[in-house]
This record gives sequence, structure tokens and C-alpha cells, in this order.
Amino acid sequence: MAVTDSGEKRCAVEVFATYDAEDRHRDLRAAADAGLVPWHAVEPEALDGLTGTVSPQGVVAVCRFVDVPLDDVIARQPRLVVVCVEVRDPGNAGAVLRCADAAGADAVVLAGTSVDPYNGKAVRASVGSLFHLPIVLGSPADHVVARLRAAGLTVLAADADGDIDLDDAAAGHSLALPTAWLFGNEARGLDPTVAALADKVLRVPIYGQAESLNLATAAAVCLYASARAQRTASS
Amino acid sequence: MAVTDSGEKRCAVEVFATYDAEDRHRDLRAAADAGLVPWHAVEPEALDGLTGTVSPQGVVAVCRFVDVPLDDVIARQPRLVVVCVEVRDPGNAGAVLRCADAAGADAVVLAGTSVDPYNGKAVRASVGSLFHLPIVLGSPADHVVARLRAAGLTVLAADADGDIDLDDAAAGHSLALPTAWLFGNEARGLDPTVAALADKVLRVPIYGQAESLNLATAAAVCLYASARAQRTASS
Repeated sequence: MAVTDSGEKRCAVEVFATYDAEDRHRDLRAAADAGLVPWHAVEPEALDGLTGTVSPQGVVAVCRFVDVPLDDVIARQPRLVVVCVEVRDPGNAGAVLRCADAAGADAVVLAGTSVDPYNGKAVRASVGSLFHLPIVLGSPADHVVARLRAAGLTVLAADADGDIDLDDAAAGHSLALPTAWLFGNEARGLDPTVAALADKVLRVPIYGQAESLNLATAAAVCLYASARAQRTASS
Repeated sequence: MAVTDSGEKRCAVEVFATYDAEDRHRDLRAAADAGLVPWHAVEPEALDGLTGTVSPQGVVAVCRFVDVPLDDVIARQPRLVVVCVEVRDPGNAGAVLRCADAAGADAVVLAGTSVDPYNGKAVRASVGSLFHLPIVLGSPADHVVARLRAAGLTVLAADADGDIDLDDAAAGHSLALPTAWLFGNEARGLDPTVAALADKVLRVPIYGQAESLNLATAAAVCLYASARAQRTASS
């Protein structure tokens, strides 16, 4: 939970917690007090009413929206940006956010009519990463691609039918450049018109009989390949 | 759905499907007929009663158990084996199976008291991979490690606190050997006594602020690193 400052701005504006949860999370209480974030002790029944989960963990924070304009992301000269296009499942969106954060991505863009990252399931699946890196919402994919390319990023699309094997791209050093990765809908993949906007369309190699990887695992393999290539190139 | 032979044995013994589903999946019907697997047309209401999902896809197959003894796996001289230890969430187990299949693993072992891979959610999350590669169930982790090591496999444990960075291991070529990967419980990670059984304990590097990756994404990064190293070494 982002009670404290994350970059420039404080996210949590108010916290509700059971006494048990306060006992278990004294660090959170201390952080809230230090940040002048109001902390309300509530009965478990009241807390249950505030959450959508079957087994709530006893703490609920009311947070500000954290998304930023695409201009803010570009102004920071990003080297690794994740662009989700028409991703619809909140659990997948949260898992991709977590994975982007772990791989050191500079921002995540949820383009087009992708799922709301403030959906409770997305927030939980992100395990805090929603508050760790800048999120951009709602811009059309073609606009996002044009802006990121103009900012000097190579645009790579991940697609099961891609004509370049990810491992070959890694061996050829084309992953070391500042990169924006496009990931598509979990069921249908990337729309061909969106994939066509990319500089290259890469596929994660499938060595067994599986038809594909799920969205978050495919993103993990691609983003870690980029992270490895960028770090190797700069070391 | 594995209506047809997968390796040596047929998995499906009986199929129930709505007329709509039969129309959509004529290839399945043809495969069932070719394999002499009985096909029963049922009303949607009857099919709903056979499944645990909210929106069933219209086809249910009764299948044989597909797990095999560890001896069978070892007899095939595997080069990449996934060992899940105390993995409890069926969705995670299924996602790891899918990922192991995609990365070309030779087998998956669900050691100790790991989740039942025949749980409906695990089966669905595996997206068919349960039927694609050999599964071993129920052996204690120490026994599995001892047998796989005796069969010539290097045993690597994946742990957030591992003392070797996965990328450094890849650069040092230690991933190119025949390998068994140990992955632990989704919440607690690997028990230290199990991690201590490994030849090396590796961590997936975390470049951002995320505390960890989820089980399936961590497994994806590790298994694809091994697949890449093994294929580079043998080419």
C-alpha cells in the first residue's frame, strides 16, 4: 500500500484498518502518521463492507488516481515502456504492471479501451506496482506509438505470429535500444493494424506443444530480454 | 482438449457437448470419432451441471489421469525438468505447466503436498499443457532432487533471495547443462531446507520497486533462460 510518497506525490489520502491489522502493520501506521494521512480504526464488519474481497487483509486505503499524461513519461526520456493495447482482464493488467515494474520499465501505457487499472482486482494483482511506476491511460495506440517513436524509442510488437524470434533479436543486439513493447489482447493478441505500426514484430519461441504463453508470462520473457540487453550494452 | 493420443496413451474416454459446441468444434468431433471416443450430445442445462465454470464453453471431456512415475521421466533422459514444491494455487500450477510446455521442458513434477493438477482451475489454466508433457505427482522434494541429480541433472533453485543473479548464470553458461528447476510456494517461496538441496540458488533480478514476480512469470523467465542457453550450446 502506498501510504508514503511515491515519486512526486502522495497516493493515499485516508486509511481504514481493523485493530488487528494495525497491530500487524505498525510500519504502515507510522508512515501514515508521518505523512499526515488520516487513519481510522474500524470494526472488521465495517472493513468488510469497504472491500470487494472474500478475505480482506484488514487495511483499506483511499488513494488518488495516479495516472499521468504521456508527455510526462516522454519528458523523462524513458528507455523501456510497456504499451498494453485492448487488454481486458484486470488480473492480467495487474500482473503485467508488476512484471513491468520488476523488469525496470519506466512506464506502462494502457492504450485504447484497455481495462481500468483502478479495478480492485487489477490493483491487487499489481501487488503495489500500480504505485511504483508512471501509468498512462486512454490514449489511442497509434497516437502512443507515434509519440514514443518520435521520442527515439524503437517500437517492438509481441505477437505469436511474429516473424522474428525473440532470442534471435536478443542475439542480434536489437533489444539494447530504448524500446516500447506493444502487447495485445489476452485472447486475440494484437490487432494486425496495431502490430503493423511496430518497427518489428517478435514472437516468444514456443519449444513445446503449447499454443501460446499467457499475457503476463509472455510480457515477462520479453521485458527481461530487453532489460538484459540494455544492461549488457550499457555496462 | 486432448481427445487424441498424446504420446503413448489416449486421455479422453468420453465427451459431452452441446450441439452448438459440436458445430463450432467439428475437428474435435472428427478426432473423437477417429479415436472411438464416445461423443454425447447434451442440452446446455445438462452441460452446465457437469462444469464448475460460470460460462462453460460447451464441451466436457472425461479424461484418464495422466501422471506418470518419476522413473518414466528419468528413463527419457530429460534435459529440462520443472519441480514445483508446495505450490498451492491451482491457477498458478496450471500457468506453470503451460509455461513449462512452451519453454520445451521435458516434465513437470508437483512435489510434496502441491495442489492437485486435476483441479478444474488448474486444468483450465494449463490450456491443454496438462496433456502435453509428463506430470509426476506426490513424491517428496528431497527424493525428487536426489533422483534427478543421480540422473545427471544440475539442480537450480529459484528464490528471491538467491545469491546468484539469473543473468550472470546465463552469461557464465551454467544454464546450458541438463537442469531441474525448483520453484516454491507462491506466498512463502522455497523452504530453506529445500533450497539447500540445490546446486545453486538463483534469483530473477528485480530492477524496479516490485518486491517479487509472481510464480508463473518468474518460472517463465527462468525456463526461457535455460531453453535459450541449452539451444545456444547445442547449436
